[in-house]
Amino acid sequence: MKVLFLSAVDFEDLELIYPLHRIKEEGHEVYIASFEKGHITGKHGYQVKVDLTFDEVNPEEFDALVLPGGKAPERVRINEKAVAIARKMFKEGKPVASICHGPQILISAGVLKGRKGTSTITIKDDMINAGCEWINSEVVVDGNWVSSRHPGDLYAWMREFIKLLK
Amino acid sequence: MKVLFLSAVDFEDLELIYPLHRIKEEGHEVYIASFEKGHITGKHGYQVKVDLTFDEVNPEEFDALVLPGGKAPERVRINEKAVAIARKMFKEGKPVASICHGPQILISAGVLKGRKGTSTITIKDDMINAGCEWINSEVVVDGNWVSSRHPGDLYAWMREFIKLLK
Repeated sequence: MKVLFLSAVDFEDLELIYPLHRIKEEGHEVYIASFEKGHITGKHGYQVKVDLTFDEVNPEEFDALVLPGGKAPERVRINEKAVAIARKMFKEGKPVASICHGPQILISAGVLKGRKGTSTITIKDDMINAGCEWINSEVVVDGNWVSSRHPGDLYAWMREFIKLLK
Repeated sequence: MKVLFLSAVDFEDLELIYPLHRIKEEGHEVYIASFEKGHITGKHGYQVKVDLTFDEVNPEEFDALVLPGGKAPERVRINEKAVAIARKMFKEGKPVASICHGPQILISAGVLKGRKGTSTITIKDDMINAGCEWINSEVVVDGNWVSSRHPGDLYAWMREFIKLLK
């Protein structure tokens, strides 16, 4: 499977790098898309290589989507192409994993109405206003969408997402 | 299974937190031992809780050992109790995972003679002087010992270590 990550500078380091390795461990291919080529640096100083720009992404070519948190999602959500990628993949029922601030991109994509999920508690009200049934749980699985709250949930988040990729 | 981590301040954040969650994902219990109770902070600022001091560890109670890298192993290796724990568990054939500077503790434990393994290249000569056959590979599995070089190898490191825990 080909798994796409949407992120930008100031990503939450563990929330991007943990799933990157975990998904790679299963033999899947992982790709990071961002505003421009080169490297992006996380809040804690880790750098990862950008594989393709948002404009270069053809969502048809990817089987699943990961939306890490940090300050990156607030940057990503103002890019219409990135939001359109997330909307299309989410609506087509492809597996989507989000954590912490990651679902800010899904709010902007307008896909959360009637869906069950979680996020960092600081955007709980935004999730609810977007029509999401917000649940305070280490992981929430609602069909194709697997969401968690923060880095302390990583083990549960990927345990459930890996199941969806099988 | 009960899996023990030996570490200290200035651990390499990903090298401790990645296996912590990955092993927890499999349903095992994870415990961090260090010099004193409280929290230890990694090189990149992440904090983890210390579950027990080196003096409190009874190695008989643990089934496997993880030695993350960073600057922590150079601190840990001067603690005789910590080194004795690693020596005992390694010699008994319990699964041991080390990465980066982690095997400095195994060098001090005197258990590497005739064993195949890897580490950060910066301690390659110390590994060889300790009698280890040093191999430049993302992961080396030699019986009960699974070793990797750096955070870029995390996916391969845990892929092999998780197999040993089964």
